[in-house]
Amino acid sequence: MNKILVLHDSKSGNTAQMAGYVAEGAKSIADTDVRLLSVDEAKAADVEWCDGIAVGSPTNMGILSWRMKRFWDDEMFHSWGKIDGKFGCAFSSSGGWGGGSEMACQSMLTVLMNFGFLVFGVTDYVSRDLTLHYGAVAAKAPRDEDVRAACHKLGRRLAEWTAVHCHGRKNEHPALKMDERLMPEG
Amino acid sequence: MNKILVLHDSKSGNTAQMAGYVAEGAKSIADTDVRLLSVDEAKAADVEWCDGIAVGSPTNMGILSWRMKRFWDDEMFHSWGKIDGKFGCAFSSSGGWGGGSEMACQSMLTVLMNFGFLVFGVTDYVSRDLTLHYGAVAAKAPRDEDVRAACHKLGRRLAEWTAVHCHGRKNEHPALKMDERLMPEG
Amino acid sequence: MNKILVLHDSKSGNTAQMAGYVAEGAKSIADTDVRLLSVDEAKAADVEWCDGIAVGSPTNMGILSWRMKRFWDDEMFHSWGKIDGKFGCAFSSSGGWGGGSEMACQSMLTVLMNFGFLVFGVTDYVSRDLTLHYGAVAAKAPRDEDVRAACHKLGRRLAEWTAVHCHGRKNEHPALKMDERLMPEG
Amino acid sequence: MNKILVLHDSKSGNTAQMAGYVAEGAKSIADTDVRLLSVDEAKAADVEWCDGIAVGSPTNMGILSWRMKRFWDDEMFHSWGKIDGKFGCAFSSSGGWGGGSEMACQSMLTVLMNFGFLVFGVTDYVSRDLTLHYGAVAAKAPRDEDVRAACHKLGRRLAEWTAVHCHGRKNEHPALKMDERLMPEG
Repeated sequence: MNKILVLHDSKSGNTAQMAGYVAEGAKSIADTDVRLLSVDEAKAADVEWCDGIAVGSPTNMGILSWRMKRFWDDEMFHSWGKIDGKFGCAFSSSGGWGGGSEMACQSMLTVLMNFGFLVFGVTDYVSRDLTLHYGAVAAKAPRDEDVRAACHKLGRRLAEWTAVHCHGRKNEHPALKMDERLMPEG
Repeated sequence: MNKILVLHDSKSGNTAQMAGYVAEGAKSIADTDVRLLSVDEAKAADVEWCDGIAVGSPTNMGILSWRMKRFWDDEMFHSWGKIDGKFGCAFSSSGGWGGGSEMACQSMLTVLMNFGFLVFGVTDYVSRDLTLHYGAVAAKAPRDEDVRAACHKLGRRLAEWTAVHCHGRKNEHPALKMDERLMPEG
Repeated sequence: MNKILVLHDSKSGNTAQMAGYVAEGAKSIADTDVRLLSVDEAKAADVEWCDGIAVGSPTNMGILSWRMKRFWDDEMFHSWGKIDGKFGCAFSSSGGWGGGSEMACQSMLTVLMNFGFLVFGVTDYVSRDLTLHYGAVAAKAPRDEDVRAACHKLGRRLAEWTAVHCHGRKNEHPALKMDERLMPEG
Repeated sequence: MNKILVLHDSKSGNTAQMAGYVAEGAKSIADTDVRLLSVDEAKAADVEWCDGIAVGSPTNMGILSWRMKRFWDDEMFHSWGKIDGKFGCAFSSSGGWGGGSEMACQSMLTVLMNFGFLVFGVTDYVSRDLTLHYGAVAAKAPRDEDVRAACHKLGRRLAEWTAVHCHGRKNEHPALKMDERLMPEG
């Protein structure tokens, strides 16, 4: 089984909503087991279990929340150096466009890289004006259809990469699914 | 006189349009002289002249364009170490929200910091869902009113900081103009 | 009086040691009042008091510690939007060179920018092989003379910028002190 | 065959030297074909050919050089959206520690992520005081043994990940080689 963890912190509920769509996206790939957990519920064992992780946090002052940071500093401390090579991506809700959601995603990817994860963004667009090149982003709640689609796409791509790279399921490679992908050049 | 340089690279014209609004914003502060120049026109002497600079580039692969980078690597090379203490900010147009415009702004701020500039973003919102915490950003052309307002606000704030900090015009401090500012908490 | 806050989190004591040198550097500028506080001692009022701040944290997983983040997320929450225009810089100790101390500084500068601060690094070198372009950095404790000099330089530059820009003391501008500065080109 | 491209720009020769050690590290994994090319020699076809890439640039003003950026903006323009899922990492030489080499690596990883690459750093240390958590870094030339070891390690890890994830060679997973790895906790 392809194993995906969607880990999130959320205060207003916006990032938690995003997490739900990310989890749905991951489940859209066959034979994928998905754990959807808040940072208060998750344990180091959940991260150790997964092939790939999507980490979500509200954008707080331009980077991830202190609660999400504490998870990686404290709960994950003894796992450091033992979980290299998993796959990772990020998502975040901020107060508005230009409010730091890309940078918050970058801060989560930095943490994941520190743990030896292979991190990525998604080239695809989900509408004329929305993409998720460094993670899925939202201004406030994921109300709009394209924001939801971005979250779904992120989870789906994560599960595709782990299927391809951890389980040898070459048929799940996004390059073979161009008909379902919205690319600006094609 | 308060001296502001708005320096931009643009291929499609989108970032050039943003630059125009930034320049207008800077001019909205009294006794401010504004130079609006493309990266092909500007010289090191223009940067040396200014109190503050707004640098704009299209978001190309998540960071500033190679043409804008070349300007700082080559044209500005001999000015390095001689222009510390000026003020700086950034703006960028990308293909879509989530497409890297925040990160492109960050790359420009990194370059400016390398030259000893004091760099900033803007706390104010310009509409319910748009801010410019790390620079003014647009998805494609600055068509929408709030995106134009973000550019205007960026130039205005730049000219305010240089007025306050370089010319002792304390009355231009944004803290004294709360009535014209849109802040989420107030 | 020129007012400087040196705020730090430290677990091993390495970043606390750096903070001491930063504070000494700030005091080397005349008529400067320096508060040196750990993140457990500091209050929002200390940040509101200062003209400029140097923020230090251990490099934890590539960014600032969760304790330092919590300070800005929680303690400073109600100050957001009311303290724009102060000056800020960063310092960090990591486990080794290449271990993320530059990126940890960047994460602190991102938080400061979010609060409307004007942030900077230092162009000067402190030895042939050490500079502090994005903040002062150390591998483990600040044992070596040049690492201590980098911390001192950071605090000094911070107090210079606030003296020049907040208090109109133009004679403190680093451009007038080239004889005390180590620049690669001169 | 495992296919690795080491792509570099270099002015002083420092980054080119690093590239040589990176290439040696990649070759240390069996059945690995390595292309070592300067940015002036490389073509889009070389990037399309590889399973994984190590990109190296001098740290110029805190980010990658304009020549390296031009390669991705122009030469690679038509490959965008067609090469997702390759593996990538970065290396950089700066004028000194604290001079931006980590941030230059980050800028290269941002570009690679934009192209859909899976990017990583290395958890391992190569000496008491040197690691390569976000890419291999050097202060000026890679003179010291540990800096050379960091470059070698980067290339080796890249070839390990592509062997494991692209070619199903599970025996090359770094978790199975703890005896050759220097980890702070073990």
